Amino acid sequence: MHYANGESTPCENVLPDQFRGCSDLNTSAFLRRMIRAERPDLVVFTGDNIFGSDSTNSTRSLESAFAPVIEAGLPWAAVLGNHDQEGTLSREGVMRHVAGMKGTLSRVNPEGVEIDGYGNYHVEVRGAVGSVVSNKSVVNLYFLDSGDYSTVAGVGGYGWIKASQQVWFKQTSERLQSEYMREPEPQKEPAPGLVYFHIPLPEFASFDSSNYTGVGMDGGVGSASVNSGFFTAMLEAGDVKGAFVGHDHINDYCGELTGINLCYAGGFGYHAYGKAGWPRRARVVSASLEKAVDGGWGGVESIKTWKRLDDEELSTIDVQVIWTKGSPGRRK
Amino acid sequence: MHYANGESTPCENVLPDQFRGCSDLNTSAFLRRMIRAERPDLVVFTGDNIFGSDSTNSTRSLESAFAPVIEAGLPWAAVLGNHDQEGTLSREGVMRHVAGMKGTLSRVNPEGVEIDGYGNYHVEVRGAVGSVVSNKSVVNLYFLDSGDYSTVAGVGGYGWIKASQQVWFKQTSERLQSEYMREPEPQKEPAPGLVYFHIPLPEFASFDSSNYTGVGMDGGVGSASVNSGFFTAMLEAGDVKGAFVGHDHINDYCGELTGINLCYAGGFGYHAYGKAGWPRRARVVSASLEKAVDGGWGGVESIKTWKRLDDEELSTIDVQVIWTKGSPGRRK
Repeated sequence: MHYANGESTPCENVLPDQFRGCSDLNTSAFLRRMIRAERPDLVVFTGDNIFGSDSTNSTRSLESAFAPVIEAGLPWAAVLGNHDQEGTLSREGVMRHVAGMKGTLSRVNPEGVEIDGYGNYHVEVRGAVGSVVSNKSVVNLYFLDSGDYSTVAGVGGYGWIKASQQVWFKQTSERLQSEYMREPEPQKEPAPGLVYFHIPLPEFASFDSSNYTGVGMDGGVGSASVNSGFFTAMLEAGDVKGAFVGHDHINDYCGELTGINLCYAGGFGYHAYGKAGWPRRARVVSASLEKAVDGGWGGVESIKTWKRLDDEELSTIDVQVIWTKGSPGRRK
Repeated sequence: MHYANGESTPCENVLPDQFRGCSDLNTSAFLRRMIRAERPDLVVFTGDNIFGSDSTNSTRSLESAFAPVIEAGLPWAAVLGNHDQEGTLSREGVMRHVAGMKGTLSRVNPEGVEIDGYGNYHVEVRGAVGSVVSNKSVVNLYFLDSGDYSTVAGVGGYGWIKASQQVWFKQTSERLQSEYMREPEPQKEPAPGLVYFHIPLPEFASFDSSNYTGVGMDGGVGSASVNSGFFTAMLEAGDVKGAFVGHDHINDYCGELTGINLCYAGGFGYHAYGKAGWPRRARVVSASLEKAVDGGWGGVESIKTWKRLDDEELSTIDVQVIWTKGSPGRRK
């Protein structure tokens, strides 16, 4: 969202006739529009929620940025980007504030675990009430802090997900898979997992326009200059079907690599670089439940994704199925 | 070493006039020759110590393979390759046996730590007796199990160093650095670290003959098909100056990447593929102590490496200094 001070914070990279009166409030309006159109069960913010260096008060910027989703009474989750801490709050300060806000499922970090970063947590989504999986997580959502900038001398560029976070992630995934597949009501394959963080992995650069859906206009992938192995950790975990990131505003593609869809969320905020005439956009992820033999609801049957553009029609584009139950996955 | 059954196990890829009577015993003879010539303080074996699938008794193969270094009364350390477990012992079994052998500093794993693999341990090398660093580790040696083969469905190829091992490695490095730089006799920069494992990291493919010393004739780098982030973990740790691997028999180069020298040990064993007419070889690493102002010994001043060829002269080639104290390193 790149939210700063609201009405006084101008839009970037919009057409000349859109510039006048365009501000952070357009970002909020787009968020309200998305909520009305999609009626989501959960809204995820993939970092750079506020643009710290243009914000005079980070707390106030956070309150304004997330206001639409709180007003709508929806559950929501956020991770840190590389700009959130550039204002009056540190990374820890931003994440502590976010975790205390109304309606959020965000947490600062798992308890009793030594871990790098702020905002590493997971969310379990229970199956339908009354169904056999009503006490199990049918979609495992993982949220991680991908850092801001390298702190290693001689290594420039952006941050990365550290080994401590990967160990926590793999242990959490293993526990959820084992709970899902054991008594009572043992399921035959793990529930799908979806992962959210800010900075794309180096593996996002594995594609070209022939094997992804969407566009890549950012002149490359703004990943860290080193590979810290999180893609491999997701492969090892075995339940992850999609990873969703922010960071590159004018890349909005999804590409599949060895069973995991690597997807950009799409540039959302108006006080953020973009491409004039190329509408701001948001990615939607939808998980459909299967009908069990007895007619009741089962686990998740398929996961779809599409984007909505902030144009007149709130156009839906790039609809794709990224996972179907029983398809050749990366199971151990 | 690729040791199997001794005298009955033939050499591979030697010249026609060398083949007759050539066996595992030539590997042992080369090891004895190296020990006599270099009089090392420590001998490190970088995996595929035995060639399990041609060994009728893994225990006996291990005993024979390491016999020369035990007979010489030298301390030694070994890690697992991808072939050690292909005989009558599992990976755990091989490592347990190795860790119990005479004179070895090898250990199965650190105690009280949940960690992947077998043979993850470190060795501290104390400073000179009577010197200010006599109670500190002046060279930190790290040994890791880089696995054998991928166990992830849909991902082929070799194994890799997991996040749990990286967390242990970084914590160990952090502790050693803090001990070295704190009272009593606080040192100004961390002691150099050297890391040993079997399978080269994907980053070994960052070089070409213009920026490495040695040769790369193996038609590429036999790393895992995914990047598990251990190179990044070494950068984060900050003390590592060199990483030494086996695996690719006819690559023997060292190349420097952001302050860390990535080096092949060089193909040593005669019952292992090689190149006829291209002598088997071994890498030597030498750490020199500095003289303190008062004339006593200090910490390590520089680290050199070279290779010895198993030719008539036991030729020394490719001498290079890979680190000098105070040089721009990757310190945090």
